[in-house]
Amino acid sequence: MQIILLSGGSGTRLWPLSNDARSKQFLKLLPKEGSDEKESMVQRVVRQINESGIKADITVAISLSQKDSITSQLGNRVDIVAEPSRRGTFPAICLACEYLAKEKHISPEETIIVMPCDPFTEEGYFQKIKSMAKAVSDSSFELIVMGVTPTYPSSKYGYVMASNENFSSNKEVLEVEKFIEKPSEKEAEKLISEGALWNAGVFGFKLGFLTKVSDNYFSSPIFHEYLKNYDKFPWISFDCEVAEKCRHMGMVEYRGFWKDLGTWNTLTDEIPSHVYGNVLTDGLSKNTHVFNELNMPMLVLGTENLVIAASHDGIIVTEKSKSETIKDYARRLKSRPMYEERRWGTYKVIDSVKFDDNFQALTKQLTLNPGASLSYQRHSCRDEVWTFIDGEGELVVNGKRRHVGRGDVIVIPKGDLHTLRAITPLTFIEVQHGENLIEEDIERFPYDWDKSDNNVEDKKEIQN
Amino acid sequence: MQIILLSGGSGTRLWPLSNDARSKQFLKLLPKEGSDEKESMVQRVVRQINESGIKADITVAISLSQKDSITSQLGNRVDIVAEPSRRGTFPAICLACEYLAKEKHISPEETIIVMPCDPFTEEGYFQKIKSMAKAVSDSSFELIVMGVTPTYPSSKYGYVMASNENFSSNKEVLEVEKFIEKPSEKEAEKLISEGALWNAGVFGFKLGFLTKVSDNYFSSPIFHEYLKNYDKFPWISFDCEVAEKCRHMGMVEYRGFWKDLGTWNTLTDEIPSHVYGNVLTDGLSKNTHVFNELNMPMLVLGTENLVIAASHDGIIVTEKSKSETIKDYARRLKSRPMYEERRWGTYKVIDSVKFDDNFQALTKQLTLNPGASLSYQRHSCRDEVWTFIDGEGELVVNGKRRHVGRGDVIVIPKGDLHTLRAITPLTFIEVQHGENLIEEDIERFPYDWDKSDNNVEDKKEIQN
Repeated sequence: MQIILLSGGSGTRLWPLSNDARSKQFLKLLPKEGSDEKESMVQRVVRQINESGIKADITVAISLSQKDSITSQLGNRVDIVAEPSRRGTFPAICLACEYLAKEKHISPEETIIVMPCDPFTEEGYFQKIKSMAKAVSDSSFELIVMGVTPTYPSSKYGYVMASNENFSSNKEVLEVEKFIEKPSEKEAEKLISEGALWNAGVFGFKLGFLTKVSDNYFSSPIFHEYLKNYDKFPWISFDCEVAEKCRHMGMVEYRGFWKDLGTWNTLTDEIPSHVYGNVLTDGLSKNTHVFNELNMPMLVLGTENLVIAASHDGIIVTEKSKSETIKDYARRLKSRPMYEERRWGTYKVIDSVKFDDNFQALTKQLTLNPGASLSYQRHSCRDEVWTFIDGEGELVVNGKRRHVGRGDVIVIPKGDLHTLRAITPLTFIEVQHGENLIEEDIERFPYDWDKSDNNVEDKKEIQN
Repeated sequence: MQIILLSGGSGTRLWPLSNDARSKQFLKLLPKEGSDEKESMVQRVVRQINESGIKADITVAISLSQKDSITSQLGNRVDIVAEPSRRGTFPAICLACEYLAKEKHISPEETIIVMPCDPFTEEGYFQKIKSMAKAVSDSSFELIVMGVTPTYPSSKYGYVMASNENFSSNKEVLEVEKFIEKPSEKEAEKLISEGALWNAGVFGFKLGFLTKVSDNYFSSPIFHEYLKNYDKFPWISFDCEVAEKCRHMGMVEYRGFWKDLGTWNTLTDEIPSHVYGNVLTDGLSKNTHVFNELNMPMLVLGTENLVIAASHDGIIVTEKSKSETIKDYARRLKSRPMYEERRWGTYKVIDSVKFDDNFQALTKQLTLNPGASLSYQRHSCRDEVWTFIDGEGELVVNGKRRHVGRGDVIVIPKGDLHTLRAITPLTFIEVQHGENLIEEDIERFPYDWDKSDNNVEDKKEIQN
């Protein structure tokens, strides 16, 4: 059995804690039962899968910008397949399945469970996933979907209706008669009265079922070719391309706790602690959640029903019930991510200034984890000044290697090749200055730390 | 006629926009009639004095930490007397009077008006100050105080009661029978019912009257000696030391608009615009004032009766009526000022980090105004790294002078003498690192920019 965890999301609904590089599923805000630690949604679901006794390999389907976050939070416990660009859930699931088929050589008869990484659920949910897996191998259904008991006529979800013959039966797997994508609220009301369930976005099928659909768009024996030809797949959801067209679908119903923690309002309901970070409150604030990721102190006096959140990306103060509208506004506030967790460590942007003639300066504080290294890189539009303030490391500039530590100041003019490796946690302040300060102004080259001689051939790494 | 403007205040009640270096009277938040510009309380009162036709020199009595703010906001339009340390209004007024007597050689017969710089008032207030000045020269009263019609039985103000014989008269100056310092709310109620007025903290007297009181504590023909012997004066208010003891005091009553803008609640009442800085709100917020001095965007959705303010010192979110309690909390949040307006320009602290072994790094963005220069200085506990990102200037390190501009990186190890002068607005990023990063780690020496040869004698400047 193989699980494909879908980790998408544009990261605007929990702004400013979430951003393009740190989607909501990576925020470490959820209480971990029986401990003071916090975990993220993606850490929680992987832990729950393991604790429920499901025997499966996990492959996480992500967008490229999430790669470092996933590696940092889950380490090597999962496989990762990164979409070269965002194209909806159907291409993302095809890519993950082709990875399993072509790269991991999984049999076409193997059971695949696709599930989102962000619903907040309990143990029973994972037991139903076992039932779905059993139905994939034991029943004749091409596709199994999980139905969830709806609590209100939402227009945000799809609906699944079992055929009438099922109603009296007590079978674990029911035949699906109708599969309806996001109806209006009125239609939803009617569907619920007729017994329809929410489509939980959890699907089970045999690997060969999906690779056959995928073959309609692109086919190759080599997985890497799918990455290169990813734009051959249509920009469409799995629900529309596969589920709606499926003639013989089964459903397993889950009646337990299931919640989409997509907004500040729903998320804070599940968080017992009201204050994170450097926050001081009087005893008079009611139903107010405060998240402060900044160094500076925050003082909250006498407020009611608020969510207050501050990160290097910005600050929000919202009445809880209004937090759903954030998406419309956050798009307008969009800028480069100001804090990122990368495979090598973390950085935050601490200052950014642009002058009349378009010259810019961007100042960052960066920390490399011990043993981690940057790629061997050069920039064509900016100079960089590094002032090392803690730790020990090795620096390479244009092939010359040297030791660096506290107090060392290094100037790297545009065009100079450079890389850095940390021996102990290595913290430095970087001042970038130039005319086009974007993350994309970077050329990466291979560097072998074990070889003393690294000739640069003009061969860029494909991705990193 | 001489006006002494008192500019005290510890800067906690409008935290985080105010701090020790930037008291509330320097915040440029007040609308300037007939223009889109904003002005500070101290700028407003100086403008109002001039517009009212009062012919007087103005001396501002300040604490040392406010010197650069005053110079930056008022330029050379006023004289400045800075207390060497904070000791209450009596010593501060003595010092200003001794400055007028010994340094400016003002006659003992000259009329002095002492007034706070922060009440929010109208033209009529300044006309009453003219009446007070007239009473000082024409009447036999030793001291004239301004009384303000009270609007509620406050325990924050002192009260002044005219003697009974005055009641039927229409005289501009009434004789004071009782002068009561901050009573309880209950006593205040009684006082108001008996006809007492608020003490507005505005006093008029002849210069010789006060220097005679001052002589009781310290006397010298040289003003500089008063600075050196400032601790000979008791830590006491002018009201207790002078007004309460005065046997023959007159009062001029002001019945117009007068308001203490000391809290967020009272201040925001006088500010028509609800949003300052990089702020986005939905149309649903009610009676919410937002001040954002940070670079990052702020989003405010559906809030009611709030003040939200963010500066480099911190962030506050407070229900308006609770904003009076801020003082108790802000003390606990106190840290070094993160933004300062100096005589030479401005700086903000953009990052601060401390490691386990007490080693620290502090990163600032600084801008020097054209023509302005830093003092010639050295530090004993920190290195500094300057990366110039805009403008042109001249740098001196250990006597050697050079031109600096964009892209120049200068390392200044501890012990090296250095100064900087801006030709055009000069912006640079400074990374300080060392073991005791405090503003006080500085030794200042004279430097003459017009001489090519500046030998450093070991003679520190007295203050700067």
